[in-house]
Amino acid sequence: MRVVYNEQMGELGDLLGEMAGLAGTAMERSTRALLEADLALAEQVIDEHEKITELGAICEEKAFQLLALQGPVAGDLRAVVSGIQIVADIDRMGALALHIAKATRRRHPNHVLPDEVKGYFAEMGRIAVALGAATREILETRDPARAARLHHEDEAMDDLHRHLFTVLMDREWEHGVAAAVDVTLLGRYYERFADHAVEVGRRVIFLVTGKLPTEEEIRQLVEKVDSLTVYPESH
Amino acid sequence: MRVVYNEQMGELGDLLGEMAGLAGTAMERSTRALLEADLALAEQVIDEHEKITELGAICEEKAFQLLALQGPVAGDLRAVVSGIQIVADIDRMGALALHIAKATRRRHPNHVLPDEVKGYFAEMGRIAVALGAATREILETRDPARAARLHHEDEAMDDLHRHLFTVLMDREWEHGVAAAVDVTLLGRYYERFADHAVEVGRRVIFLVTGKLPTEEEIRQLVEKVDSLTVYPESH
Repeated sequence: MRVVYNEQMGELGDLLGEMAGLAGTAMERSTRALLEADLALAEQVIDEHEKITELGAICEEKAFQLLALQGPVAGDLRAVVSGIQIVADIDRMGALALHIAKATRRRHPNHVLPDEVKGYFAEMGRIAVALGAATREILETRDPARAARLHHEDEAMDDLHRHLFTVLMDREWEHGVAAAVDVTLLGRYYERFADHAVEVGRRVIFLVTGKLPTEEEIRQLVEKVDSLTVYPESH
Repeated sequence: MRVVYNEQMGELGDLLGEMAGLAGTAMERSTRALLEADLALAEQVIDEHEKITELGAICEEKAFQLLALQGPVAGDLRAVVSGIQIVADIDRMGALALHIAKATRRRHPNHVLPDEVKGYFAEMGRIAVALGAATREILETRDPARAARLHHEDEAMDDLHRHLFTVLMDREWEHGVAAAVDVTLLGRYYERFADHAVEVGRRVIFLVTGKLPTEEEIRQLVEKVDSLTVYPESH
């Protein structure tokens, strides 16, 4: 029973990792489409979005079967339930990438972003893609230290997001209200994408340690990890 | 076993309903605080937000116990898992009400909203509060027909949200970019609140019928319900 459980739980982790990979790819493409006003690429993200939703349904079904057929208890039970909760977060990450692609399509052939803020979005996109890849890695390896470090990347995202707002709020902003509205929503999509990645990390820590960490505990864990000089780069 | 399960499932439904009630109350107060620049009321929403999170943790724990001790199968199992997923949606509804309260606090003693758009927010707030109350009712009664009708209210919200954007995008907008950014984000919070309420409804339909409805199926169910002239008003 235990062997079957472990095997099926491993499969669920891999499927969730694959789902996170798709969300990361969607984010990478929708960011590129946004920065280059690339309609074909935006359409690709839109067309392929369903794959993420479908994989989410498969993950949920797999988790149901695990619960129904293996009847896991204690930590095992929590792990499966966490898996179900993680599906919702990754599903949302995919939806946020989709929103970005749709904004690009809506304004095409115009660029959504004034040149002045493109650098911010290139960087937010880079962090989001890194978070997507890290989420995938964490789901496949269940490394709680790596999960805790998602927090770092999220803080970089929050900083960028805050700076973006100071640019918007500046009296010198000369691109009008319509562009400001677009930039506001797009900035929010990137920030929320990062939040969901952090939430997945928090759930993986829970899954491994059996305890859902507070933000403060994550910070402490990060500091502890960072103070280890031998911390392997590959993690 | 079955009696104990039904009793505990009923308790979980009531707790989730209570949680939705708290989110609805938070939304009612944060909307009033927003419209009247009422700092004390905004602070109350912020101070009491933790109650929603705490109740969410209690709901999750209750669901875990149900899974661990009752070992439900088939439809019962799906119902408990739906309960866990619903916690995340209501938790988010509470967080969105919190964001609105924080925006009010941030701009105090100034009003966040130009008078021109206050009517939109009064109406979006009214719909959000109605959705919160309906969510509570649905969780307590598990009435799938009522759950399907959440869709109606969500469509009204989407219409308002769209109109709000035409006001913002109008060349005549004379309140500057900073106000436009606030209005954009606040509008999004109301729209997302409604989306989460609809998602709860969708999960309740699933819980009762064993099938997660598509948007099209919800629409058909709504039409069927609306065509019944004897449909009781109390639902």
